[in-house]
Amino acid sequence: MLRQLLPRCGRALRAPATLRSSQILPLQTWQTARCYSIKPAAASAAKVLDLDPTKLSIQKTEKPKTLVDPSKLIFGREFTDHMLTIEWTSNDGWLAPSITPYQNLSLDPATCVFHYAFECFEGMKAYKDKNGDVRLFRPDKNMERFNKSAARIALPTFSPTALIELIARFAKLEERFIPNERGFSLYLRPTLIGTQKTLGVGAPHSALLYVIASPVGPYYPTGFKAVSLEATDYAVRAWPGGVGDKKLGANYAPCVVPQLDAASRGFQQNLWLFGPEEYVTEVGTMNLFVALRDKETGQKELLTAPLDGTILEGVTRDSILGLAREKLAPEGWLVSERKITMPELHEASLDGRLIEVFGSGTAAIVSPVRKISWKGKLVDCGLTEHEESGEVALRMKNWMEGRQYGDEEHDWSYKC
Amino acid sequence: MLRQLLPRCGRALRAPATLRSSQILPLQTWQTARCYSIKPAAASAAKVLDLDPTKLSIQKTEKPKTLVDPSKLIFGREFTDHMLTIEWTSNDGWLAPSITPYQNLSLDPATCVFHYAFECFEGMKAYKDKNGDVRLFRPDKNMERFNKSAARIALPTFSPTALIELIARFAKLEERFIPNERGFSLYLRPTLIGTQKTLGVGAPHSALLYVIASPVGPYYPTGFKAVSLEATDYAVRAWPGGVGDKKLGANYAPCVVPQLDAASRGFQQNLWLFGPEEYVTEVGTMNLFVALRDKETGQKELLTAPLDGTILEGVTRDSILGLAREKLAPEGWLVSERKITMPELHEASLDGRLIEVFGSGTAAIVSPVRKISWKGKLVDCGLTEHEESGEVALRMKNWMEGRQYGDEEHDWSYKC
Repeated sequence: MLRQLLPRCGRALRAPATLRSSQILPLQTWQTARCYSIKPAAASAAKVLDLDPTKLSIQKTEKPKTLVDPSKLIFGREFTDHMLTIEWTSNDGWLAPSITPYQNLSLDPATCVFHYAFECFEGMKAYKDKNGDVRLFRPDKNMERFNKSAARIALPTFSPTALIELIARFAKLEERFIPNERGFSLYLRPTLIGTQKTLGVGAPHSALLYVIASPVGPYYPTGFKAVSLEATDYAVRAWPGGVGDKKLGANYAPCVVPQLDAASRGFQQNLWLFGPEEYVTEVGTMNLFVALRDKETGQKELLTAPLDGTILEGVTRDSILGLAREKLAPEGWLVSERKITMPELHEASLDGRLIEVFGSGTAAIVSPVRKISWKGKLVDCGLTEHEESGEVALRMKNWMEGRQYGDEEHDWSYKC
Repeated sequence: MLRQLLPRCGRALRAPATLRSSQILPLQTWQTARCYSIKPAAASAAKVLDLDPTKLSIQKTEKPKTLVDPSKLIFGREFTDHMLTIEWTSNDGWLAPSITPYQNLSLDPATCVFHYAFECFEGMKAYKDKNGDVRLFRPDKNMERFNKSAARIALPTFSPTALIELIARFAKLEERFIPNERGFSLYLRPTLIGTQKTLGVGAPHSALLYVIASPVGPYYPTGFKAVSLEATDYAVRAWPGGVGDKKLGANYAPCVVPQLDAASRGFQQNLWLFGPEEYVTEVGTMNLFVALRDKETGQKELLTAPLDGTILEGVTRDSILGLAREKLAPEGWLVSERKITMPELHEASLDGRLIEVFGSGTAAIVSPVRKISWKGKLVDCGLTEHEESGEVALRMKNWMEGRQYGDEEHDWSYKC
């Protein structure tokens, strides 16, 4: 649908052909010189191709990296031997995918990704199960969101199953980077950038989708560590009619200064409030869950903000809601997607009705919250002094890992 | 101030040294292989340096480009022979600036500019005056805004006068690209990107500031051409507490799909409305000016939205306000920075009190508006059928060009 709106008036220059292992190139050039910017271009009436995994070419590295000691892994610093890349032009559609040695991108300084933030991404993980098989977790949810993000900023969309197949092959190729222990995984970062090299603001006529992978250790190597938050209203992360529900680069850089400000006052993350009602929306780059008891009836409720356009559609959020409906509801819990305000949260805390609060995201699964700084008060989120996690967060983490690592066979788990 | 907030915990790896013309490198490598991503890094207590124009090195191209026929220039497609680059690390501050042949940037695929939109830019022009001298227009205003944009997304700030001096030298070096005729100029694009190559979301410990230049022709080669707008409320460009007043890449990609939607209905640009009151904020990527008569008194007024955090601090906006206070106020005009709603604009149009409406920006200076589509109505903006511009827009364009091209000696003009 969206693509039909793009102006098509001219002929695209072809992207440089993907290098094949059979080609002889000086190594230095090859390693740093893959050029991706495409000249100003637009499509003819040529047939536009969707992503085709059967066209995948693989060029393995001749210099495999030495594995880093798993206990020394830091999120997103070390990368595997290879990367998956797929170029797109409005003229030809998706070109042949390739897995090549991990290498720099060579881009014209006028490329639109540097100027107008034509960029979106996903965060997902590959896990090694007890049989040594590599598994993805709900990759269909990531692909669905990736396509929504791309379409919102006039970047090309693709067949979700085709990209899952390609990512699975890539993850499998890199399996030696996934340590065999619980808590370890391979963080996968699918990224889509606009590569047109002109300064006019418009839909890019060329793009590059790439996937890189970084081995990661457990978020809490020595057990949970509850965080304290600063309720933030002076900076606003997302708004109705904006793009806060999409995984765009644009949503991230503006959050860093408020985060540094909160950190300077001793709080690890921002709790993003919205509007005069002070709706509780998200925490840092995670969704937020609140467990409390109803004031009148004492009914236990696990709630998170509804997807009203200002909330990121977290895959972990959706999984926690699913698990809660499956496992907590039969125990008598009410499971809700509804708005809650900071004054309501504060009141529940004062009444002793606030059971626990936690963030949810791919990196940590759950991140328990101890206190929230709000209008000069410190709102207690239900943990005793020596507790680092509530029971719901702990159970959720275990249930999630059971499916991520394939202990429990479940259709959320995708064997590569 | 901001920099003090950044965590400093380790030692930065040095950025690759800037290449000098005395170094012998295979041409192919040199032209595509400048690597900018810096390893995860943070500063020691080393002295952090500000931008120093005396350290500039210049390496001239050995392959000067052939000039494009001025009548064939399209905005932002053709670039000059060289580019200005300055690297920054949190450890060392601003490294030595260099002017080198225009070339690709080589960046690690994990570089934060691709993932979290650590990017901001400026748009400014160099003009050739009747004596052949090259002039910038109010570069101090661009530098002030550039620093504000950078600080808002945890990128480094710099001495404004130092960067003006460097840009002036760069523009002067490229003067053969500026055609000698009125309406032509050299569009300058200072750009600042985060270059840290880790996936953790945080303040980048390395950055690259670069300036590229593109010769441009007159926005209206055959005289003004009034545009029609679609009043847009379903997509919201900016929000109080957001970053809509900064020149960040993040503000641009999300505006393209609404623009394509408006274009599919026959309207050239979006008129961004805000809130239930339907405040008129900006048009496309320009500020908006409205000239009208007061309902009660008949007083003529030229107004634009106030800088409340949702409006880009346009240099052309500020210049038009200045010229209006200087030249229109003595003629009896009221000059205001105040909010106006779409219903008020509509009422003024129905009453015949709407004199004219125009956008303002660096590319066009002024862009007259014929009609606005709003709730099924077409709001007439005061032009007769055969008029392409109102008198205020026309006079503003002439006054602005008088100062940009140095016909009138004025402190807004900076001789390179």
